[in-house]
Amino acid sequence: MKTINLCGLAAVSARWRQNPDSIERLFFDYDTGRKVGDMTKAMARMRKVYRCVENEELEKVAGSIHHGGIIAVVNAPELVGPTRSDPRAWAAARAPIVILDRIGNAHNLGAIVRTAAFYGVKHIIIPDTPEAARPNDAAYRVAEGGFESVQVWLPYNMVPLVEDLAAAGYEVVAASTRDGHGRTDDIKPGRPIAIVLGNEERGVSDELARVCTRRVTLPGTGNVESLNVSVAGAILMDRLLAR
Amino acid sequence: MKTINLCGLAAVSARWRQNPDSIERLFFDYDTGRKVGDMTKAMARMRKVYRCVENEELEKVAGSIHHGGIIAVVNAPELVGPTRSDPRAWAAARAPIVILDRIGNAHNLGAIVRTAAFYGVKHIIIPDTPEAARPNDAAYRVAEGGFESVQVWLPYNMVPLVEDLAAAGYEVVAASTRDGHGRTDDIKPGRPIAIVLGNEERGVSDELARVCTRRVTLPGTGNVESLNVSVAGAILMDRLLAR
Repeated sequence: MKTINLCGLAAVSARWRQNPDSIERLFFDYDTGRKVGDMTKAMARMRKVYRCVENEELEKVAGSIHHGGIIAVVNAPELVGPTRSDPRAWAAARAPIVILDRIGNAHNLGAIVRTAAFYGVKHIIIPDTPEAARPNDAAYRVAEGGFESVQVWLPYNMVPLVEDLAAAGYEVVAASTRDGHGRTDDIKPGRPIAIVLGNEERGVSDELARVCTRRVTLPGTGNVESLNVSVAGAILMDRLLAR
Repeated sequence: MKTINLCGLAAVSARWRQNPDSIERLFFDYDTGRKVGDMTKAMARMRKVYRCVENEELEKVAGSIHHGGIIAVVNAPELVGPTRSDPRAWAAARAPIVILDRIGNAHNLGAIVRTAAFYGVKHIIIPDTPEAARPNDAAYRVAEGGFESVQVWLPYNMVPLVEDLAAAGYEVVAASTRDGHGRTDDIKPGRPIAIVLGNEERGVSDELARVCTRRVTLPGTGNVESLNVSVAGAILMDRLLAR
């Protein structure tokens, strides 16, 4: 089975609180070891490997210098697509959704998931194409535990899913670098919200933008061409979900 | 003189538009070379070095794989502190300001500057301490040209500067991870705005927060501990500067 390295105390602690049994192995340095006594005790009870190691070994396990002093090895979740009835159920629960139309950079994916978790987003939708970054070690690290409170879905095709969300009552708001509305304050509070963010270079595809219920362009000064996609996503989440 | 490598077409083009004479040397790969014919012609006129090189040489010049296909070598700006009269002049011009209280990560600095440029921020204040990231190659690259439209200041001491800004009429808003107001919509439009963002681990220092005119805590679900500092900054800029 494929595994993921959860790196850093925020990501490891979040998994620990949600689902301690899912941690297969735990590695940490001396300093971090003093903060995770409860975890190591439980790992011992579960007869699983935990080890206090030198920095070099953490780097080797993580395959990166960005291990944050602790690594939990967990099984990678199997990602599946939603069923046809899920959009109606999500709409009934008014569950906020973030749809990522081929975000290519795993750091951006992780940054978006961190903010999404902060604002109570329940579902993250990623298309099943090789261009789209999947949740990997870097994304989990940058998300600082955010993956533990969202469900990631991998639909085969995005357009019919967005059509189903719109039909179920979602306001599906695409972040567009041009041609969109500048304002969002006329979107009715209480309506379920889906936010669509596009590829770092090419934005949301025309095909997908067409089936969204609204396109929003955040107005800027033109001093830089655009906002980073994780920043644009955060601003839309703040505007639409924090009210 | 210390130099900076501006990497990537966004950062290089922004500098080119603002101040072409400041580019000392220009290196690019074959693909990018086809997009910068006007630059190379002007470099030739100015009798400056420009070179189409292999990827490996770009990596060597940049000291990183993140060169984005083009590198402009420029002289690093000398950073100085504002004078005692600057806060009053800035307030008269209603110039938005972002104050960074020991942001340690150059990527976060660059991300904040990109968003700040998008929202028309004029002045970025960084304390003169070794903990605080200075504008470097990575910060310039992440800022995507944002440094060209802001002025970076390096005051000796932040507390009297913030006191002077408040006395000059600024609403000085500190992003606080706890104990702040949740709302920002009661801040009067038209008042000059300064946003204070704190260190990634420790936030805004108590000493500095005390002299700000307001502390804001963005309310979240608790699913993750906090927002990334560049995301929190972007949300405050959107709330306070985009109206």
